[in-house]
Amino acid sequence: MLIVSSDAHRHHHCLELDGAKLIDSWEGPDRADSIDAALLVAGLGPSVEPEPFDRQLVERVHLPDYVDFLSEAWARWVAGGNEAPAAMAFGWPARRFRSIRPRHLNAQLGFYSFAADCSIGAGTWPAAQASAAMADTAARHVAESGQPAFARCRPPGHHAMRDQFGGYCYVNNAAVAAERLIELGAARVAILDVDYHHGNGTQDIFYGRDDVIFCSIHADPLVEFPYFLGHRDETGEGPGEGSNLNLPLPHGTDATAWFEQLDRAALWIKASGAEMLVVSLGVDTFEHDPISRFRLSRSDFTEIGRRIVDLDLPTVLVMEGGYATEELGKNVVEVLSGFSDT
Amino acid sequence: MLIVSSDAHRHHHCLELDGAKLIDSWEGPDRADSIDAALLVAGLGPSVEPEPFDRQLVERVHLPDYVDFLSEAWARWVAGGNEAPAAMAFGWPARRFRSIRPRHLNAQLGFYSFAADCSIGAGTWPAAQASAAMADTAARHVAESGQPAFARCRPPGHHAMRDQFGGYCYVNNAAVAAERLIELGAARVAILDVDYHHGNGTQDIFYGRDDVIFCSIHADPLVEFPYFLGHRDETGEGPGEGSNLNLPLPHGTDATAWFEQLDRAALWIKASGAEMLVVSLGVDTFEHDPISRFRLSRSDFTEIGRRIVDLDLPTVLVMEGGYATEELGKNVVEVLSGFSDT
Repeated sequence: MLIVSSDAHRHHHCLELDGAKLIDSWEGPDRADSIDAALLVAGLGPSVEPEPFDRQLVERVHLPDYVDFLSEAWARWVAGGNEAPAAMAFGWPARRFRSIRPRHLNAQLGFYSFAADCSIGAGTWPAAQASAAMADTAARHVAESGQPAFARCRPPGHHAMRDQFGGYCYVNNAAVAAERLIELGAARVAILDVDYHHGNGTQDIFYGRDDVIFCSIHADPLVEFPYFLGHRDETGEGPGEGSNLNLPLPHGTDATAWFEQLDRAALWIKASGAEMLVVSLGVDTFEHDPISRFRLSRSDFTEIGRRIVDLDLPTVLVMEGGYATEELGKNVVEVLSGFSDT
Repeated sequence: MLIVSSDAHRHHHCLELDGAKLIDSWEGPDRADSIDAALLVAGLGPSVEPEPFDRQLVERVHLPDYVDFLSEAWARWVAGGNEAPAAMAFGWPARRFRSIRPRHLNAQLGFYSFAADCSIGAGTWPAAQASAAMADTAARHVAESGQPAFARCRPPGHHAMRDQFGGYCYVNNAAVAAERLIELGAARVAILDVDYHHGNGTQDIFYGRDDVIFCSIHADPLVEFPYFLGHRDETGEGPGEGSNLNLPLPHGTDATAWFEQLDRAALWIKASGAEMLVVSLGVDTFEHDPISRFRLSRSDFTEIGRRIVDLDLPTVLVMEGGYATEELGKNVVEVLSGFSDT
């Protein structure tokens, strides 16, 4: 299996408002180290660097003004005399506020985000570019070879909306991969999101389209981040009506209940006629994840890999969440090992 | 002039995300101390304690589920094992998210707020109740006597929406005062908001009504908090169409430009036939305010008082912002001195 990875993430550090404390984010460089180390031990590979960042591709899933904002925010923050090591919003266009794009950086930070759980620092945009490029490179490989590939993305991407960052995500890597697969000829691509959290960004990006369909198994937004998207009745709109499937589950969900939903998702994807698959691979469904509340064990990740292989579609796996850092790499390897056997 | 004040605010301390740092809020107990001391020196008074908090009254301007949330949030935060001295949100229903009320406290903190510039601590709800009660008591006095009264509210209120806190505000004290004036017989009440920031909460509460009309002179939301409300084209809706007047001004606005807008506001209020007046009195338009960018001087506040008196309406003055703490009390006294001459 081709592995695409990059060290560009190493200079991306997040501040995170967590429990009314400002902490170094759960989403840190050690996560990627854990995965890289486990891949090496498992002998998975070969590993390649990503092709250059393709802004035109990214602007097919994100608005150009948002991409401009991401690329300029850090320099504007420094120019504004701010001392903190990362730019954060403090006000948002919440319920009944208006969607007019403001001019001031502090205002735009709120306009272009939905959470205070991440920030934009000196290394954020370079890391986000490299992360998107990894997903893109993996997608090209799959389109060309039919063989699976794993993009070891960091930062993750599935919370990134068309024009909003949040949930540790800036550019939606899975969406970038799917868009590339469409460009290279797939008539329909399915994105399967198995991260503990709803892939609100991916849903947002493809909500009105039927060439990229989206299915997410995740913790119920009534009790879990991102809270305000991910409900069962969100099924797509316009040409995309019926192309979005949300399968929310309660806190404490065990493997039996989780795999029932994976089977539903698999049937739905099969029935859709999708020709290629992108997996938003979060392993924060793990029983020992420090910020999540599902109860999957190490061996369940092996089974996830097997069932994805059973879908029998050319597959791009894109790294998303997982915060039990020490065991993160091993859990990822378990999923990928299902593919190594093919 | 009757002064209504209370020490209940003393146990209300805010955490504030400011420049990506978590600080003790600019809106602290020392603000009220500054005002109380200056009132004493100026011999303004008499000073009275507020009547008891009237929840039924407050529920005519805020949704009952929001009032429940405010009253229970701190106990739920502690029960959830949180260690921080105040509850803060970290995710919001931003653009294209849904307005479904979630169940988890962390989610509800975001649902019921729009900013990370304030928090809910042990003393917040008692202080917010006392603050609303001060505005109510001042309003009753004005309704009964026709004489002016000043509610030395803390926390302030004008950013508090029907069901969202933010901008240091929880219960909308000015709205509570206006609602009481209506109840006690005024056919129409005008709220004049001279705080540096747009009174988004007051606008939200009365946007569809014509018995309480709202006019705000404030920094342009394109560059200043609350960023996503306060534009010129927000004029009210339904029966309230034409009952909302926003007069945004750029950073750096001086007294000449500011008073031109106050004259516009005064003409509009006169023409409305309002029988009584509530003033949302922020003095963060002061040239030395540390977080604001208008250029009014000490003597300009005397002039503000005079022009409000010239409106010749029974007037409730409700304290809002002002963060040049040392000079805050003196600036407030300047405004009130215009009334003392009457």
